[in-house]
Amino acid sequence: MIAAPRHLVDRVLAGDVRATAQLMRDLDDRLPEGIEALRRLFRHTGRAHVVGITGPPGAGKSTLTDRLIGWHRARGRTVGVVAVDPTSPFTGGAILGDRIRMQDHATDPGVFIRSLGTRGHLGGLSRSTAELVHVLDASGKDVVLVETVGVGQDEVEIAELAHTIVVVTVPGLGDDVQAIKAGVLEIADVFGVNKGDREGADRTVRDLQGLIELRRAVQRPPPDHDLQHRPVGAPADPAARRGGGDAGGWEPPVVRTVATTGAGIDELAQAIDRHRASLDATGERGRREASRARATFVALLRERLLAGALARLERELGHLDEVAARIAARETDPWGLADELARRLQA
Amino acid sequence: MIAAPRHLVDRVLAGDVRATAQLMRDLDDRLPEGIEALRRLFRHTGRAHVVGITGPPGAGKSTLTDRLIGWHRARGRTVGVVAVDPTSPFTGGAILGDRIRMQDHATDPGVFIRSLGTRGHLGGLSRSTAELVHVLDASGKDVVLVETVGVGQDEVEIAELAHTIVVVTVPGLGDDVQAIKAGVLEIADVFGVNKGDREGADRTVRDLQGLIELRRAVQRPPPDHDLQHRPVGAPADPAARRGGGDAGGWEPPVVRTVATTGAGIDELAQAIDRHRASLDATGERGRREASRARATFVALLRERLLAGALARLERELGHLDEVAARIAARETDPWGLADELARRLQA
Repeated sequence: MIAAPRHLVDRVLAGDVRATAQLMRDLDDRLPEGIEALRRLFRHTGRAHVVGITGPPGAGKSTLTDRLIGWHRARGRTVGVVAVDPTSPFTGGAILGDRIRMQDHATDPGVFIRSLGTRGHLGGLSRSTAELVHVLDASGKDVVLVETVGVGQDEVEIAELAHTIVVVTVPGLGDDVQAIKAGVLEIADVFGVNKGDREGADRTVRDLQGLIELRRAVQRPPPDHDLQHRPVGAPADPAARRGGGDAGGWEPPVVRTVATTGAGIDELAQAIDRHRASLDATGERGRREASRARATFVALLRERLLAGALARLERELGHLDEVAARIAARETDPWGLADELARRLQA
Repeated sequence: MIAAPRHLVDRVLAGDVRATAQLMRDLDDRLPEGIEALRRLFRHTGRAHVVGITGPPGAGKSTLTDRLIGWHRARGRTVGVVAVDPTSPFTGGAILGDRIRMQDHATDPGVFIRSLGTRGHLGGLSRSTAELVHVLDASGKDVVLVETVGVGQDEVEIAELAHTIVVVTVPGLGDDVQAIKAGVLEIADVFGVNKGDREGADRTVRDLQGLIELRRAVQRPPPDHDLQHRPVGAPADPAARRGGGDAGGWEPPVVRTVATTGAGIDELAQAIDRHRASLDATGERGRREASRARATFVALLRERLLAGALARLERELGHLDEVAARIAARETDPWGLADELARRLQA
């Protein structure tokens, strides 16, 4: 039996763990009462500090997240975690049980961890992530950690949902910092060099500091130029998030950590806290909230429109798989068909 | 001056390099004549073997791609490359010039390389990639290599565009094969363990083979169960691509390579060729073509719908940034607004 929205809303606001879990399941199933509850919760959000933790696979992000949870709990702060991770039908998660490690916090009512498999959320990853962050925020969590794997487009979109972005790397990914591509460099507020006791860690730290200096030294094209070339509805240029002033002169610190032993965690957590203070002091937090609102809205709109269009497609042209078969047989072409359908829908 | 579509179409079909580059620029700019040319070219596509090469940053995918180009050229086959890579305004590409290495082939008319920065293509990465693959296919390339970084949702979507997927990893990414998450394991047709002369390469190969055995041993839930839980418009479950029979019993080989010296490249290329033959022999190629058509169509439809909706939003509610500011101020909520707009558009 599903709790009535009003009741559910009150319980989530009171920090009730079961109600929070129930709402997340309702949202997974796209139940109208789930969305309705989310709408009512929305005005109670905006309080939590949302921290994105991203980086290549194998960098130890989960262990680092685990350590950050402990750090915040030791200071009496409550923590929500959204872990975005490819899942598998046969393991139900990451193969080697990153998630399991975090279950140490499972009995702590001040911690709520939600794992979000990308497989079940294809086409709606940023929407799902945004919603889970809102729920955790509304449920009173002081800090929400969003852990994402990889350095692709998803991560940039998901990064739009965070106030502070921590990019984690490790020594020895290549012979150089190839692993830190420019796109990721630009969204980082704090760098963590994890497995910092490994050979090559000094060099990785030095290389990152060099890249940060290079970024500072190089003149960017005027933002208008960039915005004009941005496709409609695409998130703003990640660099533009900084409002042209790198959040009031904020320069990403590079922190060396060893997540398995806990070394460097205090420094990393404090760097994140300092960034939070800098956001508040410079007004950058407001700009990031707007960027987050924009990303959430566009992700929702995209999903909603596509669902409506595909429903109509099925009524008028047949099941998507049949349409795909006709395209594959070159009986029709996807551009003409998408155009025609969009025109009819939006006439 | 832009060439008339008919003329451009004929020149692309004849393999004219300048016409091909021109069409790609037109598509970047979303010129109607570019789309029109693409529609006319479409029925001439479907001949090229499309190979996706994916894996974490620093795995040496570009060098490997470079070697594969050389391998095919030595056999008289023409090659197209689409490299999907985060870019930066100050380097115009990957920081350490992966792309530059590939410029060795710049003077060879049998090779066409196109780099696709994710930054300029946010929201349309799979659409752009699909289009570039179609152009290269129509221009007569025998093989099209699509190189993508990371293991996120993008890669799974882009993987839908390929006939054969090569997942590249390297030893030492972690203490285990954590780097190969389950989602990627499922889409791989061939595994490359690059930097295979490094310490730990034996273990990485062994671990991968163990995972492949595990995958074979574990019973999957019936496909129907899975499809029911798939969100509308999401690409089919990657595992379902295999039509329940792993492409007629195809088991992903694990090939050790050292891209910098060329060791193992022949074996890797032959494994890819064998997979191609297996696709043809089992009819799996047809299923993958349908999946590719579906992914292309849905990506186009999504983009087209969103563009139309945002144009109407601007006319009726104000600029997207103003709307985002109102959401950030909690004056309205994104769910209600997206819903209302979608309903009005699709009434």
